[in-house]
Amino acid sequence: MKKRKVYILRLSHRPQRDKRSTTHLFLAARALGADGAFYCGEKDEKIQRSIEKVNRSWGGDFEVSYVTDWRKIIREWKEKDGEIVHLTMYGIPLQEVINQIKISHSPLLIVVGGPKVPKRIYELADWNVSITSQPHSEISALAIFLHELFEGKELSISFNNAQVIIVPQAKGKKILKLNR
Amino acid sequence: MKKRKVYILRLSHRPQRDKRSTTHLFLAARALGADGAFYCGEKDEKIQRSIEKVNRSWGGDFEVSYVTDWRKIIREWKEKDGEIVHLTMYGIPLQEVINQIKISHSPLLIVVGGPKVPKRIYELADWNVSITSQPHSEISALAIFLHELFEGKELSISFNNAQVIIVPQAKGKKILKLNR
Repeated sequence: MKKRKVYILRLSHRPQRDKRSTTHLFLAARALGADGAFYCGEKDEKIQRSIEKVNRSWGGDFEVSYVTDWRKIIREWKEKDGEIVHLTMYGIPLQEVINQIKISHSPLLIVVGGPKVPKRIYELADWNVSITSQPHSEISALAIFLHELFEGKELSISFNNAQVIIVPQAKGKKILKLNR
Repeated sequence: MKKRKVYILRLSHRPQRDKRSTTHLFLAARALGADGAFYCGEKDEKIQRSIEKVNRSWGGDFEVSYVTDWRKIIREWKEKDGEIVHLTMYGIPLQEVINQIKISHSPLLIVVGGPKVPKRIYELADWNVSITSQPHSEISALAIFLHELFEGKELSISFNNAQVIIVPQAKGKKILKLNR
């Protein structure tokens, strides 16, 4: 699989309200080939612990970091010639911009808003991209974005150092547990 | 867009824990071209109201119904020659079965589990399908499934009778409000 560095930036996380949705967002990012995620808002060690636990069992080294200020990450990203996509229902449809986005091999930061995304994000993003212009979920939007970005190859990634591996079955479950 | 009837069946909804995730699952299903959803577990009128509110503003007629017993829906579905996909990380990879699934034009029921899916579901499903064999989210799994099923055409659906329409922008937001 083409190894372009891809990170997620989740804005304004609130542990009480968003615990499961941010965890699921990061699990989707991890399963679908992203390298790591940043989040801002309130610090929430439970999320970091959940993802580390998943890495230990299921492999890979998806990293999660808390950042106090999204401006700093975005500035640093731009200084390193990284590119920024902001997923928003107000943006240009995915199908019109994905080929442009795929041309580059620069590190890509995918910004996923909470409620009330600052206007500045729209300006700083290289692309504001909509996955339909209908309300749905940041998790479904990110999933389709990554699936298009990686052209479906993300569905066949194998994760290093997994302790648990599923063997696909037509009916039922088959799990291999490895002692490492 | 090819109009194959597609419904979601969400198992074992628990209002306290799953309110947002089931709502987001149904919003994703709606935005990405499904016709409606059933759910079982505990009845939760808030979810139905949220989706109706979205339909009123954003158009379309995605329907949500509570069912007391998943066995009944599945039996009725099979009697009407409908087909059943169960999304599970233990199933056959999407990329290996999607072409088979797309051949038919029969109504399709997509079963999405909560925790502890009954073994019987694996047996009753025509296809147990995995969207990677890694843990992530039912929302991301459903999104990628629908995106592949509808071949990306779901990204351009227009919804009937919308009161609110977004006009895609490279930067910023543009919303049309229609008086109907």
